[in-house]
Amino acid sequence: MGNYVNSKDTGLRGVYVANTGISMIDETAGKLFYRGYLISTLTKYSTYEETAYLLMHGKLPVREELERFSSDLKSERKIPSEVLKFMMQIPKESPPMDVLQSTISILAHYDPDIYDQSKEAHYKQSIRIISKIPTVIAAWDRIRKNMRIVEPTDNLSHTENFLYMLFGQRAPANIEKCFEVAMIAHAEHSFNASTFAARIVASTNAHVYASIVAAIGALSGDLHGGACYQVMKNLKEIGSPDKVERWVIDKLANNKKISGMGHAVYKTVDPRVKILDKCIRLLTENIEDYKYYQMIKLIEKYTRREVKKLRGVEIYPNVDLYSAVLYNLIGVDCDLYPALFALSRSVGWCTHIIEQKYPDPPLKPVLYRPLADYKGLYYGPDGGKYIPIDKRRG
Amino acid sequence: MGNYVNSKDTGLRGVYVANTGISMIDETAGKLFYRGYLISTLTKYSTYEETAYLLMHGKLPVREELERFSSDLKSERKIPSEVLKFMMQIPKESPPMDVLQSTISILAHYDPDIYDQSKEAHYKQSIRIISKIPTVIAAWDRIRKNMRIVEPTDNLSHTENFLYMLFGQRAPANIEKCFEVAMIAHAEHSFNASTFAARIVASTNAHVYASIVAAIGALSGDLHGGACYQVMKNLKEIGSPDKVERWVIDKLANNKKISGMGHAVYKTVDPRVKILDKCIRLLTENIEDYKYYQMIKLIEKYTRREVKKLRGVEIYPNVDLYSAVLYNLIGVDCDLYPALFALSRSVGWCTHIIEQKYPDPPLKPVLYRPLADYKGLYYGPDGGKYIPIDKRRG
Repeated sequence: MGNYVNSKDTGLRGVYVANTGISMIDETAGKLFYRGYLISTLTKYSTYEETAYLLMHGKLPVREELERFSSDLKSERKIPSEVLKFMMQIPKESPPMDVLQSTISILAHYDPDIYDQSKEAHYKQSIRIISKIPTVIAAWDRIRKNMRIVEPTDNLSHTENFLYMLFGQRAPANIEKCFEVAMIAHAEHSFNASTFAARIVASTNAHVYASIVAAIGALSGDLHGGACYQVMKNLKEIGSPDKVERWVIDKLANNKKISGMGHAVYKTVDPRVKILDKCIRLLTENIEDYKYYQMIKLIEKYTRREVKKLRGVEIYPNVDLYSAVLYNLIGVDCDLYPALFALSRSVGWCTHIIEQKYPDPPLKPVLYRPLADYKGLYYGPDGGKYIPIDKRRG
Repeated sequence: MGNYVNSKDTGLRGVYVANTGISMIDETAGKLFYRGYLISTLTKYSTYEETAYLLMHGKLPVREELERFSSDLKSERKIPSEVLKFMMQIPKESPPMDVLQSTISILAHYDPDIYDQSKEAHYKQSIRIISKIPTVIAAWDRIRKNMRIVEPTDNLSHTENFLYMLFGQRAPANIEKCFEVAMIAHAEHSFNASTFAARIVASTNAHVYASIVAAIGALSGDLHGGACYQVMKNLKEIGSPDKVERWVIDKLANNKKISGMGHAVYKTVDPRVKILDKCIRLLTENIEDYKYYQMIKLIEKYTRREVKKLRGVEIYPNVDLYSAVLYNLIGVDCDLYPALFALSRSVGWCTHIIEQKYPDPPLKPVLYRPLADYKGLYYGPDGGKYIPIDKRRG
């Protein structure tokens, strides 16, 4: 029998399941590093493309490498007309994450390298997916609103181009900047549920699309990528700052989770909070008058106070509490927030899929195959004997 | 820091990650139980529908329950015309598992209960998925061959109807019987990679379709559901029984895996082997003349001998070695074998998704969030300092 580390259903909390060289979370210090660089360093100095290169290739690029990488991304932005046609056929009320999952799965049918198991083909497929996800999201938001689809343009960066395709015009410079910062801050986060799902699928030797499609499914859940959407739904439900305290107390009394508070890994404030907080302040002239900002501060304050009182433990805000408010300021519909998360995280997923299939130093890739602790009877009802149907007890 | 059980990339082998009441593998005795019933009991006495009911509801049904369940499955066989239209648009050479992944993802857009988080809605969605997978597979095989799509019929059982839709006419009785046995034997197998992926996605609160789509992705890999397809490709590549010995020796000398041999969990012969072996014999008049059967027996013999010689360990055949030959006898194209696996396993996946979201006894469902052991430098190249691009070393 195996190691009995985890005989309860604890979701593998605190269990190391693999090695990685991609990112590190110092959960006590509240620090997040991509390839040895603090995310605060990257959000301050770097771009989304450069950060993507860093994640995928393990080092910051020289100018030529970055130009080549950015140009590769640009050249893959368009999606085949057959896929756009499909998107125009699906019901307009379909949730954006479901549409993203279907569409990325369909894009696999049009990738000429789908059978190629080489590392190079995996990079190519990854570039295509990272580049096409923004196009799919923007196209879907316009299709469902009966608006003209805006084609990608080569003149803009990865994140600028997304906002351009979404809004049909360039966003103001400070919004473009803050959106890029948010995308850098969400690009990678080690073995969260979506990345873990992608790695498990990749471990069977499935292709990049199949693995990304699994990750999108995981991200769609409201305990993961759906949490920032849930935060905004909560803010709208609460309505005003004076009602936050009562709402928090009621939620906790009913043993409900407060979206945006607490984290499976961090034992202190999520380092992305400070970065997004700064962006929100940058985009808001009179921060004291901005209702949603006041409300998340109060959610934080009262949840900390009440959780301390009820359970005697500290609880801290996480990235979703702040990204919800930032995305609202940027002007994105709230049911699209999880899709923005996917847009950013696609680079982390692809990097993990490649690491899973081509581990460095070259180890043999391993199929995930854990055990489950069976809690039933060895031999079932009636000693496992098959009782003919008409003699069974109801 | 967490429990350091697994500082190497071992794919969680031998690690218990959760509790389950659905199935049990006795890896030493080589026994597989669904809800406390040996699979040999179920393949002998039960039907696919009854086994599906047992898995999903934890007990064998009384007549009324079985009739209701079978009738619910029958009523959900058809797929919306919009989805068939989509299938007719995708490139004919797309791999069946990719098509299945896309199509199930698209079916989510047409499920009226997609937002419903109740346990009942999860059962409903599960029934729809289990019932529609055969329709999608059969339709795709006919679409890609430019043949008329055969609509499902209410007069046949779940597995009979699939063969009818696939072949355009009823299969002979012994083929129908053996196919049903194979589908019962593949219906559930605890925490393999596809089931695990489905549970991780479900643990985020994602819906049943999103989770099943992840499972299909995992099953598509040749280290998982793709293995039986790989076995048939190997048999065709080898060509004749007299070439098996050389082929096995060469493969092992090149450190390659022999598909159909060895298992991540069983420490003896996979119990499904005996069941499928019997089916193959039942469908073959002169078994001594049946080339592929002779070849898998020789693959088993020489792989055991050589692995023992090279590594000093025993290796045993697994289900894929035999299912490949059985599916060939049934007359299914070999690139469709993994899809047959999905057809059967869909019931196991759905049951695990429901168990994950509604654990019994009612525990709080837990999001999967393991840790990864970061092997890079805490502060990266240049101490994690951001060097301006033109000053970087190439």
